[in-house]
Amino acid sequence: MAYNLLNGKKGIIFGALNNLSIAWKVAERAHDEGAEFILTNTPVALRFGELDELAQKTGSIVIPADATSEKDLETLVKKAMEHFGGKIDFILHSIGMSMNVRKGNPYNELNYNYLMKTLDISAVSFHKVLQVAYKLDAINEWGSVLALSYVAAQRTLYRYNDMADAKALLESIARSFGYIYGRERKIRVNTISQSPTRTTAGSGVKGIDGLMDFTERMSPLGNATSDECADYCVTLFSDLTKKVTMQNLFHDGGFSSMGMSNRAMAMYNRSLECKDCPDQDEDMMKIED
Amino acid sequence: MAYNLLNGKKGIIFGALNNLSIAWKVAERAHDEGAEFILTNTPVALRFGELDELAQKTGSIVIPADATSEKDLETLVKKAMEHFGGKIDFILHSIGMSMNVRKGNPYNELNYNYLMKTLDISAVSFHKVLQVAYKLDAINEWGSVLALSYVAAQRTLYRYNDMADAKALLESIARSFGYIYGRERKIRVNTISQSPTRTTAGSGVKGIDGLMDFTERMSPLGNATSDECADYCVTLFSDLTKKVTMQNLFHDGGFSSMGMSNRAMAMYNRSLECKDCPDQDEDMMKIED
Amino acid sequence: MAYNLLNGKKGIIFGALNNLSIAWKVAERAHDEGAEFILTNTPVALRFGELDELAQKTGSIVIPADATSEKDLETLVKKAMEHFGGKIDFILHSIGMSMNVRKGNPYNELNYNYLMKTLDISAVSFHKVLQVAYKLDAINEWGSVLALSYVAAQRTLYRYNDMADAKALLESIARSFGYIYGRERKIRVNTISQSPTRTTAGSGVKGIDGLMDFTERMSPLGNATSDECADYCVTLFSDLTKKVTMQNLFHDGGFSSMGMSNRAMAMYNRSLECKDCPDQDEDMMKIED
Amino acid sequence: MAYNLLNGKKGIIFGALNNLSIAWKVAERAHDEGAEFILTNTPVALRFGELDELAQKTGSIVIPADATSEKDLETLVKKAMEHFGGKIDFILHSIGMSMNVRKGNPYNELNYNYLMKTLDISAVSFHKVLQVAYKLDAINEWGSVLALSYVAAQRTLYRYNDMADAKALLESIARSFGYIYGRERKIRVNTISQSPTRTTAGSGVKGIDGLMDFTERMSPLGNATSDECADYCVTLFSDLTKKVTMQNLFHDGGFSSMGMSNRAMAMYNRSLECKDCPDQDEDMMKIED
Repeated sequence: MAYNLLNGKKGIIFGALNNLSIAWKVAERAHDEGAEFILTNTPVALRFGELDELAQKTGSIVIPADATSEKDLETLVKKAMEHFGGKIDFILHSIGMSMNVRKGNPYNELNYNYLMKTLDISAVSFHKVLQVAYKLDAINEWGSVLALSYVAAQRTLYRYNDMADAKALLESIARSFGYIYGRERKIRVNTISQSPTRTTAGSGVKGIDGLMDFTERMSPLGNATSDECADYCVTLFSDLTKKVTMQNLFHDGGFSSMGMSNRAMAMYNRSLECKDCPDQDEDMMKIED
Repeated sequence: MAYNLLNGKKGIIFGALNNLSIAWKVAERAHDEGAEFILTNTPVALRFGELDELAQKTGSIVIPADATSEKDLETLVKKAMEHFGGKIDFILHSIGMSMNVRKGNPYNELNYNYLMKTLDISAVSFHKVLQVAYKLDAINEWGSVLALSYVAAQRTLYRYNDMADAKALLESIARSFGYIYGRERKIRVNTISQSPTRTTAGSGVKGIDGLMDFTERMSPLGNATSDECADYCVTLFSDLTKKVTMQNLFHDGGFSSMGMSNRAMAMYNRSLECKDCPDQDEDMMKIED
Repeated sequence: MAYNLLNGKKGIIFGALNNLSIAWKVAERAHDEGAEFILTNTPVALRFGELDELAQKTGSIVIPADATSEKDLETLVKKAMEHFGGKIDFILHSIGMSMNVRKGNPYNELNYNYLMKTLDISAVSFHKVLQVAYKLDAINEWGSVLALSYVAAQRTLYRYNDMADAKALLESIARSFGYIYGRERKIRVNTISQSPTRTTAGSGVKGIDGLMDFTERMSPLGNATSDECADYCVTLFSDLTKKVTMQNLFHDGGFSSMGMSNRAMAMYNRSLECKDCPDQDEDMMKIED
Repeated sequence: MAYNLLNGKKGIIFGALNNLSIAWKVAERAHDEGAEFILTNTPVALRFGELDELAQKTGSIVIPADATSEKDLETLVKKAMEHFGGKIDFILHSIGMSMNVRKGNPYNELNYNYLMKTLDISAVSFHKVLQVAYKLDAINEWGSVLALSYVAAQRTLYRYNDMADAKALLESIARSFGYIYGRERKIRVNTISQSPTRTTAGSGVKGIDGLMDFTERMSPLGNATSDECADYCVTLFSDLTKKVTMQNLFHDGGFSSMGMSNRAMAMYNRSLECKDCPDQDEDMMKIED
């Protein structure tokens, strides 16, 4: 079902890798809704991903760029403006990576070079995108910029590690730059705090199955899928949400407003009554933050 | 510009009075987007308002109902289901009233009968609407229910008085019932926290001009208008926001995320430097909460 | 261990019933710290409780009062001022009751007379206490008023029912009246959001054992006890927290800032792996909100 | 007035420079309350500050350390443990610096080397302190760690610039590490969000006078002073707040819960009516973020 909500709108989409990526789904939906866009990711990701397939499907071009490099971003934004013959209307930032998570460094044994990289890649890159686009005056009035976040910015989830801090920083950057963009350019900047999603990135988080079962049962509407997230992004890029800015918008089936659901409690209680279960204290309680 | 976002959807809209009402604008926009709906308000409001004009314009019927009366609500919902030959898809609750505000009772001299009425009319009525609709199984799967709120639910604004408490209660009811509706019926329940708006109700708040100048300058995108609020409501009634529930969504040009803007500070500082201004201590500092 | 933190301070403590009550513990600790106070509860509670024992232990007097009755509150506050020969310094409000919970009415089948009573007893009574004390100018400059709340005000917990809405209203009243009391009298008003506690009232909530096991494992420091809550109240009544006002202060071992802990997840996962457990879908998944 | 609240407790205090510093006041108050502590700051700050005076007054020793250097921190913590013959009980982190603010780079023209330094000095240093202390097992059970924050972490204040993002990151680190410290060591980690304060650091922010006048009139109890902040820190280091963790605690006279006060509105309105005032649009509205 398409509504032409993004008819004539141009954009840049960061972070699509393969068809599990939220950014991939957003690209598909934006295309359905009449948008044109540039797809971008790092050169490495482009090698491993399947972005060409998406580009073909959506009539897009792919421009490689490392979002931590101001120079790459400048080239990207200039090429985008040339390609479209003018300014763009929307940007999606769906970028996050933690070497500490990958290497299994617990939060109390962080490597600080990795931490600075986590912050640079997952949060400061958003500032760089916004600053480069600002300097080049690349976004039309009433344009819309979105980044993807996670509830770990507000509430600690074990093993999410330094990505939680990166998401908190990301959301702060959205507010801080949203103020400037709103005042000077009438452009909105928001983050979407999405349910845990089984993307390629998400799959890297150990124990995500149990967590996703829990959040599924805690969320009255269940976990939000990537496809649903793409639908939501479309509304936030459209002209119908012009005065929503500097917000972190939960798209999570209600999880963020839950303390305890009947369904999750029932599953939890079952464990309390379990007699033949492996003793969780021995098996699973080693520190892995 | 219309997108057919609400094609075939049926609803009930509470609280339109005249063309300053947000509910009026929502009705107009929902109509543009292909929705059909029932308009409702109290018998008294129907006498003083101009709802028939709106009904004609949007091909709607008007059914009077006092939203604090379970009986009236039952009749309303049953008639709506008869009228549409089935369930509805969306509800807008835009109802609020405080006799303490009207009578000028400061917050430290509340009349408690009035307070209970404020809570009943402005918040508990939302529970009644939801409970009656639940019992009658009146809303389709993936339906959407919205109520209008205000940032006073989180942050105290002098003179907003017991309406602040009513809005806090309203938002809590949206969460509490959103859990049940989500889990059992796959229906979402949210509130929109809208900029101050010069509706007939809003005009009653003394000193609203100064406040609106302040919020206009504090909000990077300026105050959100009723028309823009109607646009936003349309997205939240549409199928593109299915997993957003139990949220309070700020639609306020960024006000809720601001501590101090350049523009508001400049205006404020001007006062600090003003030599010939009336002394604000004498003129304006009497307690009026 | 005592520090004389409340030396010479006078107060009124609402809501002690027996030695499980948080208010009881607060009274004991306030006494240790050098405070004098009046104990109060409803006439019915006084009959069933053991307040005389506490009064004796702490050298206090007991004055019965229904906190929903302005008249009772006026008498109480006047008697307190007579008794102490002057103004008081602190008030604790630890009052909550829901007939809907007691009668087992789920949240989607609320009795509205009961709901209004829940709101009146559990939240509006706090406004009444504050308003009566304000009118009688009963609290000294830099006095401190506290009410006890629960995280259900922000996040839905199944079965907590209309008490969640009452707590949201209570916290709003603390903010709204905190503004007036701060501005005019230099008195602070706050709420403490306490871990679930096995008081006589708390025990009434069905399924509290499972919930308390969950919150114990979710909270990095474990659930906060009544004794610890009493310690915390003492700091908030003392002169060391003069500029803390209009806040809801979580005293919960960290629960409010947790999304998922290792310990709770381990227990939850155990259930996922349990083969001989009763099927939770049949046994426990009936709607009981 | 002293209460012996910190009798026998040992600590480390980061960030005292001169008697305007909040850390200086905390040191004085902690000393009054019976604590012993190490004072520390960067070698440069030690040269320009007057820390020896404070050390003498409080019977402390000074150990220079750059809080961004793990090596310096290790030396510091080891020396502290030697000095005290055992573990410590509390840490205060009062460190923040932005070269972007100093150089007058607006938020849309950030130097990214400076930004990374802002984050490292003002936020990541807190993680380093916690990680080094964790590795050395330097803090006693039921110890308490505090960092100073500001409301800019939640709400944008023009000119506060990249310090806002640093504070958001700082508060996230407090939550993330608070979870580990709570679970494994029974130690609490919190931030205090303090009113704007005329410290040497604070004075650097241009236009702070107008802002402080505004926050003074917005806050029902007025801005909180450094001395009052020190009092509050004492309660959070004491044994009376053992179950408060992972929180950001506003110590601001109520500012964080205000939308608009009578007093601030009156001052603002005065400007609206001012006829002879300099036109604020010309004079003060240049972009300076």
